[in-house]
Amino acid sequence: MSATQSAVVLLSGGLDSATVLAIAREQGFNIFAISFRYGQRHDEELIAAEALAKVADLRRHVIAELNLRIFGGSALTDEIDVPKGRDPGTSEIPVTYVPARNTIFLSHSLALAEVTGSHNIFIGVNALDYSGYPDCRPDYIYAFERMANLATKAGAEQTSPVRIQAPLITLSKAEIIMRGMELGVDFGATMSCYDPPHPGMLTHCGACDACQLRKKGFTEAGVEDPTNYVA
Amino acid sequence: MSATQSAVVLLSGGLDSATVLAIAREQGFNIFAISFRYGQRHDEELIAAEALAKVADLRRHVIAELNLRIFGGSALTDEIDVPKGRDPGTSEIPVTYVPARNTIFLSHSLALAEVTGSHNIFIGVNALDYSGYPDCRPDYIYAFERMANLATKAGAEQTSPVRIQAPLITLSKAEIIMRGMELGVDFGATMSCYDPPHPGMLTHCGACDACQLRKKGFTEAGVEDPTNYVA
Repeated sequence: MSATQSAVVLLSGGLDSATVLAIAREQGFNIFAISFRYGQRHDEELIAAEALAKVADLRRHVIAELNLRIFGGSALTDEIDVPKGRDPGTSEIPVTYVPARNTIFLSHSLALAEVTGSHNIFIGVNALDYSGYPDCRPDYIYAFERMANLATKAGAEQTSPVRIQAPLITLSKAEIIMRGMELGVDFGATMSCYDPPHPGMLTHCGACDACQLRKKGFTEAGVEDPTNYVA
Repeated sequence: MSATQSAVVLLSGGLDSATVLAIAREQGFNIFAISFRYGQRHDEELIAAEALAKVADLRRHVIAELNLRIFGGSALTDEIDVPKGRDPGTSEIPVTYVPARNTIFLSHSLALAEVTGSHNIFIGVNALDYSGYPDCRPDYIYAFERMANLATKAGAEQTSPVRIQAPLITLSKAEIIMRGMELGVDFGATMSCYDPPHPGMLTHCGACDACQLRKKGFTEAGVEDPTNYVA
């Protein structure tokens, strides 16, 4: 790969996307990161995304503004309680699922890839821990990639195809953490919690699905967990 | 089809989407229409969309807010001149193409379909007049549909699949106009112009690609053109 190739990285501010950013950097890409203010109930993950972007020598960090609240139906955008102490291993689709969110995020990333001439879009989806989210599965990612290559100028002109890179898709949370540690990711600067108890302070509730998976991941990886959990 | 089935209709306010809305109504769907304030240079098409929605007995008309200006690269969102007097029949991709726009619009429609339990999404894309737009081709629509059925809860649970309905895809502009006339579409209330000369007045420049195709369509259909062109 030429050192001047560029890539788009979806950067939510979580542990997974921080690791994906480090993977894309290690591969030598010029990086355009994209984060979303989509009507989520708190800005905590965006604060983390901006801090991660600042130290990552990016070409550009785009914050896309959209409003998924108009659709409703999710505990992440509506006044629906975030489940606490639930077994995150169940394959049932949880109320924290946001309808079509990854599709909307990847579509915006595709626009950014098209205008920046990037042929790689990195996303930190994970099929193991998020078995309940339909848009985290490999088949979905392949189908998006296929559609993307028919949607764009590059696709129409059959020049370089777009690749959706999901390097974490088959990894466990512990494996992701170990990979991130190797690459020097500052996990203390990442935000996983669905319901942060002290907004603006990067604290984690410790009980939502995302916090439970995060805790378990650090334990299984045998890595000291830098997270500030309130429970 | 049960009279209570619902459908999502992408309503841009143009001649094509007004016809698609009439087709979906004729088929007896309860309709959720969606329009986009996406950073376009003028609100003219949204004014038309709202007027069309008002008389169409919809379940709901959602205006989604997003900002495609952050990506740049199009005469419809940037300070790039809209071409006038260009041959719209060329297959070259014009500067009025907005990167990944239909993918972003369809992704939002998919979210609306998911939360409203709609299994049909109607879009007025047309492969004949817009041969230069990659995201108006049948292959693209099929690929989006396939991806959509892997992206959502209904897809994951393999219940009713989502269908992307593109009833105009193989029609000429004249055929679309004739179909719309049969269904009583008020074409005088629609807006096609990329560069309306008197914002807020529903006037058309008469010279951009969209105006040229519109004029030619009415002529070929042998239907009186109700449009207020300045040239």
